[in-house]
Amino acid sequence: MKPWFGTPGMTSGLLLRILQCLSAAASIAAMASSTGFATATSFCFLISAMGLQVLWSFGLACLDIHALRVKKDLQSQILLSLVVIGDWVTAILALAAASSSAGVVVLFVRDSDICKLEPTLSCHLFQISIAFAFFAWFLLVISSHTVLWLLASLS
Amino acid sequence: MKPWFGTPGMTSGLLLRILQCLSAAASIAAMASSTGFATATSFCFLISAMGLQVLWSFGLACLDIHALRVKKDLQSQILLSLVVIGDWVTAILALAAASSSAGVVVLFVRDSDICKLEPTLSCHLFQISIAFAFFAWFLLVISSHTVLWLLASLS
Repeated sequence: MKPWFGTPGMTSGLLLRILQCLSAAASIAAMASSTGFATATSFCFLISAMGLQVLWSFGLACLDIHALRVKKDLQSQILLSLVVIGDWVTAILALAAASSSAGVVVLFVRDSDICKLEPTLSCHLFQISIAFAFFAWFLLVISSHTVLWLLASLS
Repeated sequence: MKPWFGTPGMTSGLLLRILQCLSAAASIAAMASSTGFATATSFCFLISAMGLQVLWSFGLACLDIHALRVKKDLQSQILLSLVVIGDWVTAILALAAASSSAGVVVLFVRDSDICKLEPTLSCHLFQISIAFAFFAWFLLVISSHTVLWLLASLS
């Protein structure tokens, strides 16, 4: 197995998946604990997209743990193709959700004075949640690129 | 040269680039002709991102026309790598801009009654602009995947 950072079935790959899972979970926790997140559909979409990312990254982290324990090679072409497709779908949804929420927050904070006029809205928590979502998306992009190059080198 | 749809230097590749360019230009035209687009930073970001996509797709369309006229093969590894990187950067910006604008429009139309309360806002034009932006992004994804597989088959 090539020693690329983030290769599935290696410690770095497992670390990336755990970080993705934690970032997405932190994004959900920040958004769910804020008051008034149900005012915007984008915030609910962010929770759904991050929920999907938690499930996906947790599943792949379990696969990595299994591969590390039984010293199994995960470089099968079919498995890597499935991982790349899943990574891309999850990454597109995560970027769309984070961007749409960011658009709404910029409107609340910069373009209007809604955050000042309505102090019940947890604008800081919205921003923290979106920052974690973008970080989770960035980590997912690293994983998907590693798997893509592995797949290209196999074919 | 493999007869894949959207291959650079082929008629299908040129057609895809022209369609991308036209969709992005239509998105800019719809947004710029609307009243009140400057109320949201996301809408200005959409215009910038679509402007970048118009320039990028127009440049590559010119390259395709040149390759078709002089019957030149564009399957150089360095050129294809540059095209893939440029496509990805443009696609990520286009998706982020379209999603953030969509988040704001959903807030205007569904989550609040701003579109009904302020009839001066051209909410229909915002929606048309965003639809064109998503279409331009989708066409860019098709191009970038074709170039990526070409690159993988070359290496």
